[in-house]
Amino acid sequence: MRILFLGDIVGEPGRKSVIKFLSTIQKEHSIDFTIVNGENSAGGRGITPSIANDLFKAGADVITTGDHVWDQRDLADHLSNEKRILRPINYPEGVPGSGLISIDTPAGKLAVLNAQGRTFMGQALENPFLILEDTVNALIKDGTKMIFLDFHAETTSEKIAMGYHLDGKASVIVGTHTHVQTADERILPNGTAHITDAGMCGPETSILGRNVESIIYRFKSSLPTRFPVAKGPVRLCGVIAEIDPETGKAKSIERYNRLLEPGEM
Amino acid sequence: MRILFLGDIVGEPGRKSVIKFLSTIQKEHSIDFTIVNGENSAGGRGITPSIANDLFKAGADVITTGDHVWDQRDLADHLSNEKRILRPINYPEGVPGSGLISIDTPAGKLAVLNAQGRTFMGQALENPFLILEDTVNALIKDGTKMIFLDFHAETTSEKIAMGYHLDGKASVIVGTHTHVQTADERILPNGTAHITDAGMCGPETSILGRNVESIIYRFKSSLPTRFPVAKGPVRLCGVIAEIDPETGKAKSIERYNRLLEPGEM
Amino acid sequence: MRILFLGDIVGEPGRKSVIKFLSTIQKEHSIDFTIVNGENSAGGRGITPSIANDLFKAGADVITTGDHVWDQRDLADHLSNEKRILRPINYPEGVPGSGLISIDTPAGKLAVLNAQGRTFMGQALENPFLILEDTVNALIKDGTKMIFLDFHAETTSEKIAMGYHLDGKASVIVGTHTHVQTADERILPNGTAHITDAGMCGPETSILGRNVESIIYRFKSSLPTRFPVAKGPVRLCGVIAEIDPETGKAKSIERYNRLLEPGEM
Amino acid sequence: MRILFLGDIVGEPGRKSVIKFLSTIQKEHSIDFTIVNGENSAGGRGITPSIANDLFKAGADVITTGDHVWDQRDLADHLSNEKRILRPINYPEGVPGSGLISIDTPAGKLAVLNAQGRTFMGQALENPFLILEDTVNALIKDGTKMIFLDFHAETTSEKIAMGYHLDGKASVIVGTHTHVQTADERILPNGTAHITDAGMCGPETSILGRNVESIIYRFKSSLPTRFPVAKGPVRLCGVIAEIDPETGKAKSIERYNRLLEPGEM
Ligand SMILES: [Fe+2]
Ligand SMILES: [Fe+2]
Ligand SMILES: [Fe+2]
Ligand SMILES: [Fe+2]
Ligand SMILES: [Fe+2]
Ligand SMILES: [Fe+2]
Ligand SMILES: [Fe+2]
Ligand SMILES: [Fe+2]
Repeated sequence: MRILFLGDIVGEPGRKSVIKFLSTIQKEHSIDFTIVNGENSAGGRGITPSIANDLFKAGADVITTGDHVWDQRDLADHLSNEKRILRPINYPEGVPGSGLISIDTPAGKLAVLNAQGRTFMGQALENPFLILEDTVNALIKDGTKMIFLDFHAETTSEKIAMGYHLDGKASVIVGTHTHVQTADERILPNGTAHITDAGMCGPETSILGRNVESIIYRFKSSLPTRFPVAKGPVRLCGVIAEIDPETGKAKSIERYNRLLEPGEM
Repeated sequence: MRILFLGDIVGEPGRKSVIKFLSTIQKEHSIDFTIVNGENSAGGRGITPSIANDLFKAGADVITTGDHVWDQRDLADHLSNEKRILRPINYPEGVPGSGLISIDTPAGKLAVLNAQGRTFMGQALENPFLILEDTVNALIKDGTKMIFLDFHAETTSEKIAMGYHLDGKASVIVGTHTHVQTADERILPNGTAHITDAGMCGPETSILGRNVESIIYRFKSSLPTRFPVAKGPVRLCGVIAEIDPETGKAKSIERYNRLLEPGEM
Repeated sequence: MRILFLGDIVGEPGRKSVIKFLSTIQKEHSIDFTIVNGENSAGGRGITPSIANDLFKAGADVITTGDHVWDQRDLADHLSNEKRILRPINYPEGVPGSGLISIDTPAGKLAVLNAQGRTFMGQALENPFLILEDTVNALIKDGTKMIFLDFHAETTSEKIAMGYHLDGKASVIVGTHTHVQTADERILPNGTAHITDAGMCGPETSILGRNVESIIYRFKSSLPTRFPVAKGPVRLCGVIAEIDPETGKAKSIERYNRLLEPGEM
Repeated sequence: MRILFLGDIVGEPGRKSVIKFLSTIQKEHSIDFTIVNGENSAGGRGITPSIANDLFKAGADVITTGDHVWDQRDLADHLSNEKRILRPINYPEGVPGSGLISIDTPAGKLAVLNAQGRTFMGQALENPFLILEDTVNALIKDGTKMIFLDFHAETTSEKIAMGYHLDGKASVIVGTHTHVQTADERILPNGTAHITDAGMCGPETSILGRNVESIIYRFKSSLPTRFPVAKGPVRLCGVIAEIDPETGKAKSIERYNRLLEPGEM
């Protein structure tokens, strides 16, 4: 089972590029299942039902999110109908949406999870280490072998700790949120593929997808300002991981990282 | 001018490996100048004068630090004699040590800078964007062309923003502190080589160099515990950058990333 | 039922003063039950079993704590024997100690609760609003009418929100942790007595009980330093609240605030 | 010289009450000079030029602000014409407005300062301890004796530390930002009047002036929501301090704290 994951899609440049290139990438890399993080796909802030539909049409199977999940007002209602969009699982009971979807694939059941870290994150959510341990144990008990987690968190320590915490239980754990791909993809000792951050899909000349000058202005002056999505060539970042459907262990994980040429866009 | 930079050296495993392999790396890669971040070299917390001397003897030319600079009591005094150890430049006046050293090399003057970010960092320091802009402008006015900065910061946004902020003025800017190498090394539009984080030199099976179980225990229970430096094979991470001494622009930047085999250590 | 609560006892000056004056205060104010926050009673950091025993002997019925609860190593073990020392209730399961004690008094059952806020607090604990709501509802269902909560939190918003959240269910809610008594004691619309912070029992000429110069040095230089407990006259701060045992509603809440004269100590 | 200071004015209820009652309070308490913190006077977020004018007409002499100073777009421009509105002094050079105004009064020069703390505050500003020390020393050297500071900060430690830091140099230091009046008003050993927080002018049944239910909803669910300004009776909080114009020392400081009856509003 070959899974493509694309990191945080930022604004129109990011989502147009993903929509245009996704089927090609899937073919080139014999992808069986595609997960994308869409938390910044609507002008950098959240995702709308309509953008989500465009991403599904383009070939995404599941969309994960993160701290920006509620930025667009109409998403919360949409989550009750559209189970393929996940929000972090570690919200309290009663919150719209779900952080888990279980999908029957030709290779067997695949569970996709989305959770959010707590260190330096805007929202105070419940303990993801405890909730994910319980959830993953229940999935395994239930016979699910292939488990994919997008762990949306700020610090490298929380993201690497989650990798070891679920090592041998989850098949693949990718970090998101920092928008910069890390060079530490590896299979952990007990068989879980891990990368600290998958990176983003957004404008190359930018600061996390945002206009460079506005962010520098902010750091220099501490004054508020708007942070428009940047323009120009887009880089697509993510990972391609292969899971052994018999064991649920990862067979490989590779970084996906491609700067689209201006002519391609 | 080819510069080797090695990221945060963690504990005995990290420093022993650096000391053992540094001269080989320098030869293999025709290194002219070597900078290492030593802020975690003493049991994970700070650096002692004696460890610093060992690193200098092994071939380091300058040692940078970060938020852990004061963890070892006797370092503050040592900084007034040993100008080759830098502490972040954006402390207020009167604080021991310096964040800048200017060195005459056969290829001309090379300034090495060390600064610390402010977002999610333990200490509240002065604005690094303003201080570095002034400092770099003064260095350039003074005729210095080659300028290297270790910007020790938590968030990708602050570290990338600093890259663009000094793009065309500094020759090389490496981020440190998150202990995970990023895969975004590049030369920015105006000629500054940049990577968001150089990564660490420390045990591979670890969380930022620390013992895995202790960190997981902390995240699960929120209880305090000791975080010993981990054991086992060491990975050395950093970058190799080449500066054109005539212009001060970067000609190249490559990630250095090598897992030492048990037999090598 | 008249309850005396004394806020965070800081160091030797704080605990010696409390031990010396507690029985007098109890008599002067016809106190039926005494609760003290002891999280800083051991040199400013945590509490030892022996200090706790001294406070019990002096007349405390229950000791609450907060983020400093684990600062002294031997306390965690002691908690399993000494149920009268509470730690914040919103730790995950399996953590030593309890955040609730239920005591039979001549006026009926009195439940004492201790919880910790999440905004700007060192530890990432579970949601105190959800846990306390469940706990208090269960206590009430069980027939407990008198419920006292020490909510240890940094921000005024979290502490006031907890007051309204449990208004009419808890009898008395006192905030602690900021070490400065607030002037907003009142009975909320549904009958819960509330104060945002009870203040501390510690040296008057101090910064939260600590030596003035060392704290100013830290703010000026951002350098680490020791923060010894200050010396000199002690101020005792807390509240006296009266609960109607029939209804569990608060009849009154008054600030207790007394600067001990040098001659008295 | 008798100074009235009113803490953060929240929304329409707060500003209408201040405007209606200010002249009465001034007469009742023989006030010579009035300073109000207006950072929340426009719907809870910032202040508009028109609201500022209303407050000046009602009798305010100077308006201080804080972290919400830039919430209303048109204020930044207005600051260059209206020197009586202060923004925190510890912004970098080049930022609109000023954190200091020096006013000739019949009793001599009075300098009013506004600064912002750094611990747990949204913006990363420059070191207020260093900037205020320099500014106050310069004012004193220049012959100014009466110096008033509104120090807008989150933590009690930073606010009390500032009191001792400028003790004997500033005449009066009031803390603001937490919206809850503290009960620790006092004259520090060298003659500076100090209170950790002056409190707010806003709706009594509220959480920092905001609607109770919306804030509780946020703490329970971690979901975003709007936080409208609350309704109902208003409490006015602040301090009245008297400065000896000959020495610049404080002669007294008293809390001002008055709940307006429904009939009064
Ligand atoms: Fe994102
Ligand atoms: Fe995010
Ligand atoms: Fe480090
Ligand atoms: Fe660091
Ligand atoms: Fe405390
Ligand atoms: Fe505390
Ligand atoms: Fe405010
Ligand atoms: Fe504020």
